[in-house]
Amino acid sequence: MQHSAMKTHLQPACGIIEGSRHLFPVRVYYEDTDLSGIAYHANYLKWCERARSDLVRLIGIDQRAAIEEGLGSYAVAEANLRYLRPARLDDDLVIETEGTELRAASVRLLQRVTLAGEVLAELAVRVGFVSPEGRPRRQPDEWRAAFEEFFAKEK
Amino acid sequence: MQHSAMKTHLQPACGIIEGSRHLFPVRVYYEDTDLSGIAYHANYLKWCERARSDLVRLIGIDQRAAIEEGLGSYAVAEANLRYLRPARLDDDLVIETEGTELRAASVRLLQRVTLAGEVLAELAVRVGFVSPEGRPRRQPDEWRAAFEEFFAKEK
Amino acid sequence: MQHSAMKTHLQPACGIIEGSRHLFPVRVYYEDTDLSGIAYHANYLKWCERARSDLVRLIGIDQRAAIEEGLGSYAVAEANLRYLRPARLDDDLVIETEGTELRAASVRLLQRVTLAGEVLAELAVRVGFVSPEGRPRRQPDEWRAAFEEFFAKEK
Amino acid sequence: MQHSAMKTHLQPACGIIEGSRHLFPVRVYYEDTDLSGIAYHANYLKWCERARSDLVRLIGIDQRAAIEEGLGSYAVAEANLRYLRPARLDDDLVIETEGTELRAASVRLLQRVTLAGEVLAELAVRVGFVSPEGRPRRQPDEWRAAFEEFFAKEK
Repeated sequence: MQHSAMKTHLQPACGIIEGSRHLFPVRVYYEDTDLSGIAYHANYLKWCERARSDLVRLIGIDQRAAIEEGLGSYAVAEANLRYLRPARLDDDLVIETEGTELRAASVRLLQRVTLAGEVLAELAVRVGFVSPEGRPRRQPDEWRAAFEEFFAKEK
Repeated sequence: MQHSAMKTHLQPACGIIEGSRHLFPVRVYYEDTDLSGIAYHANYLKWCERARSDLVRLIGIDQRAAIEEGLGSYAVAEANLRYLRPARLDDDLVIETEGTELRAASVRLLQRVTLAGEVLAELAVRVGFVSPEGRPRRQPDEWRAAFEEFFAKEK
Repeated sequence: MQHSAMKTHLQPACGIIEGSRHLFPVRVYYEDTDLSGIAYHANYLKWCERARSDLVRLIGIDQRAAIEEGLGSYAVAEANLRYLRPARLDDDLVIETEGTELRAASVRLLQRVTLAGEVLAELAVRVGFVSPEGRPRRQPDEWRAAFEEFFAKEK
Repeated sequence: MQHSAMKTHLQPACGIIEGSRHLFPVRVYYEDTDLSGIAYHANYLKWCERARSDLVRLIGIDQRAAIEEGLGSYAVAEANLRYLRPARLDDDLVIETEGTELRAASVRLLQRVTLAGEVLAELAVRVGFVSPEGRPRRQPDEWRAAFEEFFAKEK
């Protein structure tokens, strides 16, 4: 069994940065649906958070290390969601993410849950950096610089 | 084994209506937390939805029957969340719900996630009644009347 | 607004110990269902874990304090589930839990998800006490004693 | 904005079949962890179900169409889980799935949650085909044939 060989074919959902937008694929699974036949509304927050995790990883931020070192982590401070059309089982969604405001201790992003180019839902989110005790804290300088670079890219 | 006897002692989380407010208890479990040590942000939407389910049940709306009869169901159209303080494992939360707007096909509610009287998070939510195919539809007259009565109560 | 008064009416889902069995109520919410119209299979593990959390709390074990003090926590080591009949939206379930084996570092429990006395699913679970680094560790003496007392009660 | 162009770069987590094994990548996100710092035990069932959904899709079974046509769906009848080592935030897991028994109305699979070739957890699962009312039903002939072919491949 050659796991290293296998791993070359296999990769988890993985986003890309195109200009100042981040794109991230999400497939809708059984776990995401409810008995009305469509995706349960709270799961859109999970999908958008997966996209943000992928984005910060791509721009060089290591959240897990920061938590393990007791530095802190990002926490959602505000989330404004509009649901336009339902997502359904097996849909291949793309989460589009753009930066809208960068401050010392927080970042605002606009995220769209799309299916074949159609917007199903929109999330305007503000995440703040917080200490392990949950207090707002300036984000690390390199992290802020990484976001700055992402925000500044040509559309 | 006397299940009927047992059941007299046991009841699931169950809310009450006090004036024009509905109050609903939620305990924070392991499943609700994440590695930052606090409750995961998407779960607040689940808790508030549990409270709304309890509210509609208390005012006489049978969602399950409506779905099974193909009548339709409520779907979240808009959700605006502010997170003020974190919820933690074993916290005994109370979700407070008030009506803010009642229309033919939708209802707006304000929900607060509280701990010992302190507000941890606020959700302004709009739920719309939709057909099984997902199209907006006037909510059943009795349902609207039930909400009207809840909205009209003395604070 | 008198929160303290309110709190006397309100309580979250709360179990009881009857002889050597623990009984815990769970209501099935929207979040628990999937598009096949019944409860999603992974959620039975969540419900049983809520019941175990309630059981350990009732016998005097403070999991949150133990985690915050770096003592350790219980982790599921084995879970054997049989699904017999589906649970549906709004069902008022009772999770019945009995002890089956108590060892230095682990506990085996048998849990049944029941509806009106009928068994919908069974879970045979082994939970082990682990250090914050995830290594098996003897459970605290008082915790083991608390389980011993629960196991020893008359059926 | 050229969505079609973008979509060529992007794809959701996607498995492959190698001989008689199916391999499927899963990344561990915030939503998957709990306050003990590791992945919550119920989520392993979700990951394995994602892998099975991908497997049936790859062998040509369209679950969503079958549900929408009222034909039926697969439901988990039995799940036996052993947890060996914890999964952590950002881990890139591979779920390995092999067939172990194929019958008229059910399939048994062995699934391993692996990290860099090391087994973190094992799931022996039996899924049965059920009618929309939840009764066991022979799976469609083409579906059974599709599984037969997957089972028969050279290791």
